[in-house]
Amino acid sequence: MTKHIAIIVAGGSGSRMGTKVPKQFHLISDYPVLYHAVDLFSEADLIVVVLHPEYRHYWDDFLERHPETPHHVIVPGGDTRYQSVKNGLNAIPGKTGIVSIHDAARPLASRELVQKAYETALRDGSAVPVIPIEDTVREIDEKGSRIIDRKMLYRVQTPQAFQLPLLREAYEQPFEDHFTDDAALLENMGKKPVFIPGEKYNIKITFPEDFDAASALLRPPPPPY
Amino acid sequence: MTKHIAIIVAGGSGSRMGTKVPKQFHLISDYPVLYHAVDLFSEADLIVVVLHPEYRHYWDDFLERHPETPHHVIVPGGDTRYQSVKNGLNAIPGKTGIVSIHDAARPLASRELVQKAYETALRDGSAVPVIPIEDTVREIDEKGSRIIDRKMLYRVQTPQAFQLPLLREAYEQPFEDHFTDDAALLENMGKKPVFIPGEKYNIKITFPEDFDAASALLRPPPPPY
Repeated sequence: MTKHIAIIVAGGSGSRMGTKVPKQFHLISDYPVLYHAVDLFSEADLIVVVLHPEYRHYWDDFLERHPETPHHVIVPGGDTRYQSVKNGLNAIPGKTGIVSIHDAARPLASRELVQKAYETALRDGSAVPVIPIEDTVREIDEKGSRIIDRKMLYRVQTPQAFQLPLLREAYEQPFEDHFTDDAALLENMGKKPVFIPGEKYNIKITFPEDFDAASALLRPPPPPY
Repeated sequence: MTKHIAIIVAGGSGSRMGTKVPKQFHLISDYPVLYHAVDLFSEADLIVVVLHPEYRHYWDDFLERHPETPHHVIVPGGDTRYQSVKNGLNAIPGKTGIVSIHDAARPLASRELVQKAYETALRDGSAVPVIPIEDTVREIDEKGSRIIDRKMLYRVQTPQAFQLPLLREAYEQPFEDHFTDDAALLENMGKKPVFIPGEKYNIKITFPEDFDAASALLRPPPPPY
């Protein structure tokens, strides 16, 4: 089987949570958010966790108490997501494999989505999960507001999976401001990323309310209705 | 206090759920989705439930067993949301008051949001809750994909509240295809709707996965982390 490598990006400082402890280390169902993200890739051949050096001690403390955490290596985060992923990529040995890049702040992605992204990238080169926008969308600015046709609009998620050589080539491009996701790097090379259906409740933990929701959503489902 | 009237729109057939029983009558925490939506407005002076005649029997059966359901009147739904709201509006007596229009499929809105929409409409004429889009947004079509600047994009929710005379005037306009929300009716008259912050987990129940999520989110919160 083609090697599967996961890069878990946990570099952010989580300032929007309004708390001292970064969001990656808050607990959901007794485990840090980062643990859930790492555990999603327990079947991968290699897991690279990209972590801000300032936050290492939270993770190292946790690992001391939880040796059951899937094995992984740690590399330091950079100033941008681009640099953080690049640091993770530089830690990967060899020339082949599928690399899944996943935000630590998305602990609710399913193993099925991880598998689907891997298989799609294996076959087609890349896999970027997206979900449609179900609500009416409005553009609101100082001039007023208007309804935007949302039929073609999608919200982009992770894990995003890529063949290793393609990802290396993408990250050889020097950073530009519009590289806000890995798909943008591919497009900048004239390649078309492959989109797959994401998951509506693969939420990105950003605000305290997300934390409460993630805790609720991770608990065992209620009895059937 | 100025009269508060709620129109609960439960006209849809819920075909996307893939079930026979419409989504408004599935249970969350032992009560139908529609009950939760109605109960949100238990403090209102009048509640008008707009219901497809075909589904009346589900609701009447439930009410027989649950006399604690807030008092309300029922009017038949129309072929479009526009017509359903108009039917509800026609049932409202008098010339003054604040009307909150709420989708039955949004049982997770908070009482605080209901109150905030009421107060804002009382002061400013209207209140339309919106939330920002936190994920990267891409436009994807047959030609390819591109990142869309999401800074000014918002997802529109309910309850949307309006002063009764303004809403009556808005619904005197004959239906046009672009009237996909009540704010569009105001704009068509040259008025600016007032936007207020919505709630990220005021989700619209559309697919079965939303149902599981709503059940989880409605359960009591877990112990503090």
